[in-house]
Parts: sequence; C-alpha cells; structure tokens
Amino acid sequence: MPSRTRSSEIGMTQDTIRLFGLGLGPGDPDYMTVRARKVLETADRLVHFCKRGKRGNARTIADAIVGMNPAREIALVYPVTTEIPSDHPDYAAALSPFYEAAAMQLLAEVEAGRIVGVLCEGDPFFYGSFMHLWWRLKEKVPTEVVPAVSGMSGAWTRAGAPITWGDDVLTVLPGTLPEAELTRRLSNTDAAVVMKLGRNLPKVRTALASAGLLERAIYIERATMAEEKIVPLPEIPESMEAPYFSLIIVPGQGRRV
Amino acid sequence: MPSRTRSSEIGMTQDTIRLFGLGLGPGDPDYMTVRARKVLETADRLVHFCKRGKRGNARTIADAIVGMNPAREIALVYPVTTEIPSDHPDYAAALSPFYEAAAMQLLAEVEAGRIVGVLCEGDPFFYGSFMHLWWRLKEKVPTEVVPAVSGMSGAWTRAGAPITWGDDVLTVLPGTLPEAELTRRLSNTDAAVVMKLGRNLPKVRTALASAGLLERAIYIERATMAEEKIVPLPEIPESMEAPYFSLIIVPGQGRRV
Ligand SMILES: C[S@@+](CC[C@H](N)C(=O)[O-])C[C@H]1O[C@@H](n2cnc3c(N)ncnc32)[C@H](O)[C@@H]1O
Ligand SMILES: C[S@@+](CC[C@H](N)C(=O)[O-])C[C@H]1O[C@@H](n2cnc3c(N)ncnc32)[C@H](O)[C@@H]1O
Repeated sequence: MPSRTRSSEIGMTQDTIRLFGLGLGPGDPDYMTVRARKVLETADRLVHFCKRGKRGNARTIADAIVGMNPAREIALVYPVTTEIPSDHPDYAAALSPFYEAAAMQLLAEVEAGRIVGVLCEGDPFFYGSFMHLWWRLKEKVPTEVVPAVSGMSGAWTRAGAPITWGDDVLTVLPGTLPEAELTRRLSNTDAAVVMKLGRNLPKVRTALASAGLLERAIYIERATMAEEKIVPLPEIPESMEAPYFSLIIVPGQGRRV
Repeated sequence: MPSRTRSSEIGMTQDTIRLFGLGLGPGDPDYMTVRARKVLETADRLVHFCKRGKRGNARTIADAIVGMNPAREIALVYPVTTEIPSDHPDYAAALSPFYEAAAMQLLAEVEAGRIVGVLCEGDPFFYGSFMHLWWRLKEKVPTEVVPAVSGMSGAWTRAGAPITWGDDVLTVLPGTLPEAELTRRLSNTDAAVVMKLGRNLPKVRTALASAGLLERAIYIERATMAEEKIVPLPEIPESMEAPYFSLIIVPGQGRRV
C-alpha cells in the first residue's frame, strides 16, 4: 500500500523513516498493531518519557515484547509532572526547554544513522507527549506516526459498554478543566469520556453528579493491563484520588434497533 | 494476563469464547492488532455486514489477510441503508427484524460448536453495527470484543494533524444531526470529528462555516486505505457528496509547550 507518510519497510535507504511515534495501545500487548510490533522489534533506539525514579508507562507496556537493553534505551525524564498545574506559567517554563533538549537529542541519534522509536501510551496524536517532539522535528526528520488503540477504546471495551449508538454525540474532556466547565459540557452531551483524572477525580465526580450523570458513570483504571479495575463510579470512595492511568466513561444511550 | 472478559486462547474448552466482535482498524492491514489477526485467521465463521450486491467494507479490510472461503463466510445483507433516514420509524421497523434474525443465525452457528467472528470497521464499540448483535447475544454466548484503531485515529494520523493538545475538548458528531445542532456544537468545542458524511457533507460544511471552522477543517476519505484522500475542506467542491468511508477533522489548537 503506497503512501506519502510511511515507508513499507524499515531499512536504511535514502528517504527512510528515521523517527517513529509508536502508539502501543492501552496496555495489553495483544492490542498492539502489527506495525507497532515490527517497529518495536527493529528500531535502534527506544525512547520513553518517565517521571524521575520511575519507569515510564509506555515502556512498561513494551516489556512484554522487548526486554531492557541499556544500549538501546533512551529515557526522557520530565522535569515536572503534576507538581505544577499545567495552566501555570511555570509549567511551560519548565517543559519547553525539556522538550527542546529532548528533540535535539533525538535529532542527533537520527543524524548518527539510527532509527528512533518514541514509545507512546495509546494513540500518539490523542493528547500524546510525543506531539511536542513531533512538531519540533517534523520538518527535519522523515517521521512516521503509528496510530493505536486509544486508552478509552480499551476502557469501554473492557467495561462491556459501547460508547456511542446511532446519533450519539461524544465529548472527550480532560479532568483538568474547571468544575463549572466540566458540569456545563457534561450536561450537554450524549456520551462522555473524562481523561487525566489523578487528583481531579473528586472534582470530576461532583461535576458528573451536578450533570445528573453519576449513576451512569464507570471508573476504569489501567484498562487492559494486569491490574485493571472497573467500578461503577458511585461505588468509588468520594475523596479517592485516582492514579494517572484512569478515566471515566459515560456510555451513550442512543438508538438501539 | 487473566481477565474476565477474554480467553487467552481460542480453543474448544467449556467456557470458551464463541463470538468475537472483531475490530479490524481503519483499513491498513498493518494497523490490525495482533489479537485481531489471530482471531481472523482461526475463527470458523467470518461474518460481515454489507449492502445488497456489494462487498462489505470490513470484509474488504480483511482481504489482505484472509482469502474468500465460501464455506467460512456469512454475509449479513442490510435490508435498507441510506434510503430511509435513520430517525424515521420505517428505519427501525426494517432494521430490528434484520438484526434479530442475524443474531439468531449466529446463535445457531455457535450452538453448532463454531467460533464466530463478526468483522467490524474500526473499533466495534464506537458507532459499530456489531453493537446491535452484541446486546441481543451477550447473555446467551460467551463473547469477546477486540478493540481497534478507530477510523478517526487513522484519519488524524495520516493527515499529520494531532487532534487534541493540553486541555483541548474533543467533540465527535455524527453528520446525520440537524444543521443547527451541528453549528451549535461545533461553535463550542476545541477540536471536532464529524463522522457519517455521505449526503450530509454539504450540510456539515455549512455548519462548519457558520461556526467559523471551515479553514481549519480537513476532509479525509478512506483513511489508511489504498485510495486514501486527504484534502483541506475549503478545496472540496461545495455540492460534493462524500462516500461512506469519510470524515472531517478539526484539529485542536491547545497548549504546545
Ligand atoms: C496524556 S493522556 C494520553 C492518552 C493516550 N495517547 C491515549 O490514546 O489514550 C493520558 C491519559 O490517558 C488515559 N489512559 C490512557 N491509557 C489508559 C488505560 N489503559 N486505562 C485508563 N486510562 C488510560 C488516562 O486518562 C490518562 O490520564
Ligand atoms: C458506522 S461508523 C463506524 C465507526 C468505526 N467503528 C470506527 O471505529 O471508526 C462509520 C463511519 O466511520 C467513519 N470511518 C471509519 N473508518 C474510516 C476510514 N478509514 N476513513 C474515513 N472514515 C472512516 C466514517 O465517517 C463512517 O461514516
């Protein structure tokens, strides 16, 4: 299948793709695409984002397929993650130089002739950190993005809850939004997914209750992973903070024929 | 990885999964998951939906992996597709008995000891026809849904257009909605995907223009397939009707750090 945006083989010819945004799916290694498996097995460098002192989530997803070979690994350690709210000026002030340096590091790898794969949780172009490297490098390096099963697809599949029926409208919301905005948007949709829960969970819960959706909401942690947890939201303790890998779905109730 | 909702192997033991909702992804066979490939190769029956006299889209996606073996194929021919608007009572009146009969046919296959895979375009639980079989059969047959890369993920990936940045809100809209509702919802989101274009394209275009989004909209036909077409919407002739396999994306413009 010819295309302008991908090479059919990973090789070392003239216009070879050198940089991959490698979507690994929601967690279960069987939910990786055939393309992702191939790049994962053959790239010269595997890059992952992580918090200081922790393994990255995307790298953990890859564990089932590729063992750690230190010479092949590049860890990009975030200077901040949730310590600073993402709308605070200090957040961009800390992250911009980090992404800039990371992009330069990957560019040097590519210029040394290496094929570089950046591991991504879920789909790279859906709220992915890779996007911040991508826009810095896309004019400089032949790049391929490998789409993937998103975290939310893994979640609604495992919850046994089709997300949209008939003419349902789906709204995807980051849990980082202010409560009033969450409430307003949740009140005005047929189906919803709320991402990026963490410490936002109590606020999101209040917004769902205000919108009259609490009873329909399902909390899903680490969808398709070994420690997966799927619970109706009303059964979750009110003050609980969620881990990073969690989201809430409100399945639509549109036309069933 | 143990789980309540899937069997790790396709076999014939007591509580074996007998029915699969098999997400095949957006079109490129390399974008199928490892799990989907396996079920596709081993199921006893491959089921696909189609219009009278046409091959089904999902079956076409599978062509690259499995040839036609008539004894293995079950075609479910829709009694109506776009001849009747989906909100007209005649639509449900025609489709309910169709899905009912199809569900009974698949149940008979399962009861005869066969493993049945229902082929789905993109992700089964995201506006999928399979859902109408699933809710009729889920209490009767051990079922596994295999999530997949959605058509919209394939589309934004190939368009080179990350869909959501930072705190962007994404709204997914069926093009079947009334123009005023499309305009209202498009005016009130950061990023959008409009599915199910077909004869709705001129209406959707007007709504996008009213919402001030025409210049940001990208039209994508048959994403990741051989005949893929990606064009800025303003360059598409105004009165054009779109094929079934097409959608529009309006990428978000949220925080880039
Ligand atoms: C930075 S976004 C990345 C999203 C990712 N690119 C995708 O396609 O799902 C991270 C958020 O995705 C959600 N997420 C991703 N994978 C998940 C999973 N397996 N289970 C639960 N939530 C998940 C969580 O809400 C998390 O806070
Ligand atoms: C009944 S819905 C099924 C959606 C599917 N389950 C998914 O996950 O994408 C059919 C609509 O999906 C969209 N679609 C699915 N795959 C597509 C592709 N490869 N290219 C463009 N549009 C696609 C089109 O808007 C089409 O009208």
